[in-house]
Amino acid sequence: MSETNEPTVGNYQRGLEVMARLWGQEVANDMLMFWRSVHPDIERYITAFALGEVWARPTLDLKTRSLICLASAVVLERADQIRLHTRGALQNGATPAEVAETIIQLMIYAGFPAAWQAMEIANQVIGDRREKTKS
Amino acid sequence: MSETNEPTVGNYQRGLEVMARLWGQEVANDMLMFWRSVHPDIERYITAFALGEVWARPTLDLKTRSLICLASAVVLERADQIRLHTRGALQNGATPAEVAETIIQLMIYAGFPAAWQAMEIANQVIGDRREKTKS
Amino acid sequence: MSETNEPTVGNYQRGLEVMARLWGQEVANDMLMFWRSVHPDIERYITAFALGEVWARPTLDLKTRSLICLASAVVLERADQIRLHTRGALQNGATPAEVAETIIQLMIYAGFPAAWQAMEIANQVIGDRREKTKS
Amino acid sequence: MSETNEPTVGNYQRGLEVMARLWGQEVANDMLMFWRSVHPDIERYITAFALGEVWARPTLDLKTRSLICLASAVVLERADQIRLHTRGALQNGATPAEVAETIIQLMIYAGFPAAWQAMEIANQVIGDRREKTKS
Amino acid sequence: MSETNEPTVGNYQRGLEVMARLWGQEVANDMLMFWRSVHPDIERYITAFALGEVWARPTLDLKTRSLICLASAVVLERADQIRLHTRGALQNGATPAEVAETIIQLMIYAGFPAAWQAMEIANQVIGDRREKTKS
Amino acid sequence: MSETNEPTVGNYQRGLEVMARLWGQEVANDMLMFWRSVHPDIERYITAFALGEVWARPTLDLKTRSLICLASAVVLERADQIRLHTRGALQNGATPAEVAETIIQLMIYAGFPAAWQAMEIANQVIGDRREKTKS
Repeated sequence: MSETNEPTVGNYQRGLEVMARLWGQEVANDMLMFWRSVHPDIERYITAFALGEVWARPTLDLKTRSLICLASAVVLERADQIRLHTRGALQNGATPAEVAETIIQLMIYAGFPAAWQAMEIANQVIGDRREKTKS
Repeated sequence: MSETNEPTVGNYQRGLEVMARLWGQEVANDMLMFWRSVHPDIERYITAFALGEVWARPTLDLKTRSLICLASAVVLERADQIRLHTRGALQNGATPAEVAETIIQLMIYAGFPAAWQAMEIANQVIGDRREKTKS
Repeated sequence: MSETNEPTVGNYQRGLEVMARLWGQEVANDMLMFWRSVHPDIERYITAFALGEVWARPTLDLKTRSLICLASAVVLERADQIRLHTRGALQNGATPAEVAETIIQLMIYAGFPAAWQAMEIANQVIGDRREKTKS
Repeated sequence: MSETNEPTVGNYQRGLEVMARLWGQEVANDMLMFWRSVHPDIERYITAFALGEVWARPTLDLKTRSLICLASAVVLERADQIRLHTRGALQNGATPAEVAETIIQLMIYAGFPAAWQAMEIANQVIGDRREKTKS
Repeated sequence: MSETNEPTVGNYQRGLEVMARLWGQEVANDMLMFWRSVHPDIERYITAFALGEVWARPTLDLKTRSLICLASAVVLERADQIRLHTRGALQNGATPAEVAETIIQLMIYAGFPAAWQAMEIANQVIGDRREKTKS
Repeated sequence: MSETNEPTVGNYQRGLEVMARLWGQEVANDMLMFWRSVHPDIERYITAFALGEVWARPTLDLKTRSLICLASAVVLERADQIRLHTRGALQNGATPAEVAETIIQLMIYAGFPAAWQAMEIANQVIGDRREKTKS
């Protein structure tokens, strides 16, 4: 077994860093606390594997990855995930218009109701962010 | 009723043009013939609305739209759609590595088996394209 | 390109009329305002294409179309859609018993929990309608 | 416990009769043999409960029930079920155009690709039936 | 038709007994009242068929059946079903750790968010049960 | 960061061992070669994380985990996964009757057609295994 086939020891630490860049430090902390309260091993798998391994990969930037994950959340109709990945997209340089286009593009694949409900949720995140930036 | 609320008369023609840019003229023709054989109204709705209205929108380019649609196809486990949107992504400048990253990103959302089966399908499209470019 | 392949200019207007017949003027107005608040283009696509093209087609009446859409909403477990298409079915002549039969028929395809939750939602719409008719 | 709450003894027999009316004797026999080969208890549950209880209910006729089940099969993308319920719809008086309308109606709820693939499958059943009627 | 192919007359009574063993008498009564309020025939089908036929089968005990149903509820993201089958699993001898393992096992098949949301719901049931046992 | 929060270096090796116990050495080798051909990182994530972390956990044995994964595969209608987890269940001590019960239990949650198709697939794996044991 070559060492390159082994998960490196620093995955968890890298996961924490990716999380902060992806959603901002405040939301990252909230998510981390939430996942820990749910189950410590689930938190560990999310941080070390999902964030530290998968989200940390090169080739696609965090904005594109967020739009891809938003797309998956729209078609699976997962409200919390639509919220989270909209936030991640905006945090990493997507405009509100690009978030809207991602959702409109999926009308023809996810069904119209899935798209309009996703847009309603995304609008709330976009609105909240605007409020915060103002104040 | 203001005119901006009406679908413009040129939607169908624009749909044909988007289709050709999106998948290349040859695949676009194949898809068009296939849809017509299935049902003329379905073909018309796809060309004039799905391609001519939705895919034709600005703000996101055809590469990003293809990756978004690929994402939706991966989580919904639609084999034919994985094939089509992989082709569209490559045709519009995505590298095979970017297609692979889109699928790997979704391992944690769609389930591991959905991702590895999607990658197997995408690999075939990538391989076919390489063959063609060589010859 | 023959003109018959083009979406006619009056689709949006026709969509407004279908909407009013389908759900009654009051609910139609509510939906229209809601969709506009979500995204003007989504509202336009729903009114001109979904209502003005698809729902406006002949061969099946609005009652049958509503039961078909109710069926799709039951198996996809979309609560808001169950509400809307129950309303559309009742508005277009379906009896409460026919709505119930549609849902009971799907127990064996959608799983029992999807059916009993759909029935609970449909019952609320049926009850609300009875209240209104009384007063 | 009143007796009306008990499944009546004749459910299995009634299921066999419903099956024959629903799909025609030949297809009904094929399905029965197939289900028996899969698992005798599954066959018994399908015949006595799914057919003998649910499909046997009054209020909606077999044509409408078939269109409802076709709708569920389209959105769940179950190819074999699309085939079976198209056959049931045609057998009980639906026209090919009514089957097509059911599928077109669902474009906006199931996603366009689910609809066009369903139509391709339904067309085969419609074509096969035409061949048979001719000979 | 041999009699062994017929649903026996005592299915409904057996369903009531299975329900009480499965979730405890109190929850069983609540569910029964709820299902009756939804639709008397749905209640009858659930009690006589789902509980009295399927859940009553031998070969797998109620704990294993509950974990299997919990698994299906996790991947289908049905919150009420996660609650009910967690309760059934605990009632029939599963430990909170076994419930947690069932959910963690499904992270790689259902997607990470489906698993962490299921765990949050299951934790509430586990917590409620602990409270009750204490008092 | 405590070391207990880090993925241990031996995950990949442990994954290989779990795989062999779970499906037998021959099938494990086939899967490994298949996953490598699909994408080396996907293979690494499956072996080190899915097998070496998740499947390797204590509290539930490989038979119960296989039945749980079979349940998820039945409701998601993933044919290849039904095959794989039926094999894993049988390999770890489940009887063919227990596999059948798992699937029959899900008729009421996944819909009848999902269950009968799953049983057809599971029967093939059970039959193949019988053939092999004989020779």
